[in-house]
Amino acid sequence: MKIILLSGGSGKRLWPLSNDLRAKQFLQLLKREDGQYESMIQRIYRQIKSVQTDAHVVVVTGQAQSGLVKKQLGSEVDMVIEPERRDTFPAIALACMYLLDAKEIESNEVVAVIPVDPYTDINYFSTLYLMEKAAKSNIADIILMGISPSCASEKYGYIVPDRKIEVKDTIETYVVKKFVEKPSLEKAQSLIHEGARWNGGVFVFKLGYLQEIIEQYVPVKSYSQIKNQYKNLAKNSFDYEVVEKAQSVAMVPYDGKWSDLGTWDSFSEKLDTTIGQVVLGEETGGTTVINDGTAPVVVLGAKNMIIAVSSDGILVADKEKSNYLKSYVTQFPTMSVRGELEWGDYQVSECMHYEDNKQSITRHLTIWKDHVIEYHAHKMRDEIWVITDGDGEVVIDGKYSAVHRGNVIMIRSGQKHALKAHCNIRMVEIQIGENLKEDTEEFQWIW
Amino acid sequence: MKIILLSGGSGKRLWPLSNDLRAKQFLQLLKREDGQYESMIQRIYRQIKSVQTDAHVVVVTGQAQSGLVKKQLGSEVDMVIEPERRDTFPAIALACMYLLDAKEIESNEVVAVIPVDPYTDINYFSTLYLMEKAAKSNIADIILMGISPSCASEKYGYIVPDRKIEVKDTIETYVVKKFVEKPSLEKAQSLIHEGARWNGGVFVFKLGYLQEIIEQYVPVKSYSQIKNQYKNLAKNSFDYEVVEKAQSVAMVPYDGKWSDLGTWDSFSEKLDTTIGQVVLGEETGGTTVINDGTAPVVVLGAKNMIIAVSSDGILVADKEKSNYLKSYVTQFPTMSVRGELEWGDYQVSECMHYEDNKQSITRHLTIWKDHVIEYHAHKMRDEIWVITDGDGEVVIDGKYSAVHRGNVIMIRSGQKHALKAHCNIRMVEIQIGENLKEDTEEFQWIW
Repeated sequence: MKIILLSGGSGKRLWPLSNDLRAKQFLQLLKREDGQYESMIQRIYRQIKSVQTDAHVVVVTGQAQSGLVKKQLGSEVDMVIEPERRDTFPAIALACMYLLDAKEIESNEVVAVIPVDPYTDINYFSTLYLMEKAAKSNIADIILMGISPSCASEKYGYIVPDRKIEVKDTIETYVVKKFVEKPSLEKAQSLIHEGARWNGGVFVFKLGYLQEIIEQYVPVKSYSQIKNQYKNLAKNSFDYEVVEKAQSVAMVPYDGKWSDLGTWDSFSEKLDTTIGQVVLGEETGGTTVINDGTAPVVVLGAKNMIIAVSSDGILVADKEKSNYLKSYVTQFPTMSVRGELEWGDYQVSECMHYEDNKQSITRHLTIWKDHVIEYHAHKMRDEIWVITDGDGEVVIDGKYSAVHRGNVIMIRSGQKHALKAHCNIRMVEIQIGENLKEDTEEFQWIW
Repeated sequence: MKIILLSGGSGKRLWPLSNDLRAKQFLQLLKREDGQYESMIQRIYRQIKSVQTDAHVVVVTGQAQSGLVKKQLGSEVDMVIEPERRDTFPAIALACMYLLDAKEIESNEVVAVIPVDPYTDINYFSTLYLMEKAAKSNIADIILMGISPSCASEKYGYIVPDRKIEVKDTIETYVVKKFVEKPSLEKAQSLIHEGARWNGGVFVFKLGYLQEIIEQYVPVKSYSQIKNQYKNLAKNSFDYEVVEKAQSVAMVPYDGKWSDLGTWDSFSEKLDTTIGQVVLGEETGGTTVINDGTAPVVVLGAKNMIIAVSSDGILVADKEKSNYLKSYVTQFPTMSVRGELEWGDYQVSECMHYEDNKQSITRHLTIWKDHVIEYHAHKMRDEIWVITDGDGEVVIDGKYSAVHRGNVIMIRSGQKHALKAHCNIRMVEIQIGENLKEDTEEFQWIW
């Protein structure tokens, strides 16, 4: 069985820690048993590998997050990059064509598609292999995982089971009668009474099944074709486009630990009480404080709250009220003042707009050892790079120089430039000019 | 009558907005009737001048805050700079010697000493002139202002009055029987029942009276002598050193508006509900949010709180609990990441410590038009200045250059350097070296 791990989403619900460059699944805030911290994607990847060491996992993600996926899961991770952000149906279709064509997996092979944000115990992953058995036995086109509901909730989709089916070596399997999306609390209670379960967003099916559906949309035979046709794939969820239209759907139950880490309320339950420089004074029971900034946070007389600080902003919310966060933060610009990219990370410390319409931006950059800022140029700005630590080399208009601490590199508008780090480099970059955000042209350079 | 305005204090109680460089009295957060914002010191100075246009006010302050006093009250303000920070007795003694010697004021002249942080109505200042009349009539050595207590409080000192004295044109004057410092709540209630009033920290007396007391401590006859002897003056409060030892003390009552803006609880009552980039969601009644940072603050479901944000830190506190703030913040370094100085202001954006014990600090500086960073040198660091806006001139080891936007100025360790701004200059300064905080030697340069 192949495992497709969907790593998308903008993560506005975990603002200000998550943003478009650092989505929620990359926040390294979950404590492992050894005391180290890991992210949601690292946790789930580690759990998959602990159940089956040689599990073949394909991560589907966007270009902007590919550097972080490599950084957190290792550079050997198998990745499929979405040509543009669409929805789960196109993303899963892309990954399946990748497996069929680029990896030459047979169409009879079973795949499991899993989301990146549930916090579960290890049995969740063993359940995937029971689902694989159900799929192999051809009892249904698609096998879903039914999560045992811990309460009546309006937040989830419900799977209503019909009769039980016998599948060899699988504990229980049910034919699915119907789906109910986000019911009222009252309706949820009666559904649970009927034996309904939460839809955990796990889909298990044979590759060939999805290939036939894809061909109904776009007549593609290869991975490169589906990449080119990606914009023509319906921007819809896999639930809507495939599951709800399937002839037969079965459900395998999972009764272990499961929580969706998509909101501060549930995420904070898995976190230490304080992370970062925090002073918790009296009467702060039930409060979680995550300080990703450099200045201290002092909290006095604030109970059952989530306080989260990053350079993108500050959240102070009652834990229950934090579920309504998304509507308040959509008004903020998605441009982040910090980012983790394939070559390193940056933090913007100042954006200035002057009376004569010129601007300046100051950024603090780390370029990781043996990584490269690719050859590029800007038409409307000068850049000044001040190396504060590390060694490397720069190329400016084709001319190499070695650089080290204390060096100042002047890059005039129009000059092509690139940098390679021999060890981790820290530098301050000052951009001075106009139209700073949309003025980069890429070039090729072979180091 | 001369007015001595005491502008000292570190303002830990209004952390993180106040710090050692920007004490509470300089926070421009109080709304004037015209909608503009002013600081405590600006408000009190404006009120004094509105009662008597040509009032002679002397501000006593420390060297670090003298630039801000000039910036906020105008460069013509009469200032006495404490040679070092001591307490109110030495500070008042210094100002009195300044008036007697440097300003040649007669020893029969009355002075009023007032603190910088009460929030009062204009009658407070008219009361000063009633106190002057009482002092001139020689009924007592010192006249105090008795504030009408709005509640029984453990925070203040109480003045217990004895018999009433008749002073021409003064509404009421009382002989003071005794003082009670910070009584228990119960004791405070019985004191108020007896007619006791809060001691507002206002002292009115004749210059000659204090001159005699000063001479008992240090035999000084001039302003320059007391400056030189300043370290020998008892580091005690004026209350302790003078008022409690005085032969006769009288009290003039003040019944108008008075609150001490020294804590967030009382200060926030005088502020707008939100200042800066703030989104207040549902159920946030009674909460005040002051955001002096550049990133947004979102508040959901947090009632009766004070949330204050600056680059020094973040406070999230129940308003009542905020009175206990001081003990929590004394553990933070007093070095601020931002400051307002005589020549302009700065904001530190990054302090790095590297494995080889080198450091780098990046600062964003504004140098105000026609102001100067004086000639100085550093032994153990290089500095790189990048001008992002404005024009001026620099001197490096005696050599002038004009500077403007985009210029990079390299200052090697040991090189003497100075800068003069022809218009407001913005620049990024990167310090690279060792021992960055204590490595500055001053030199003279005549522009």
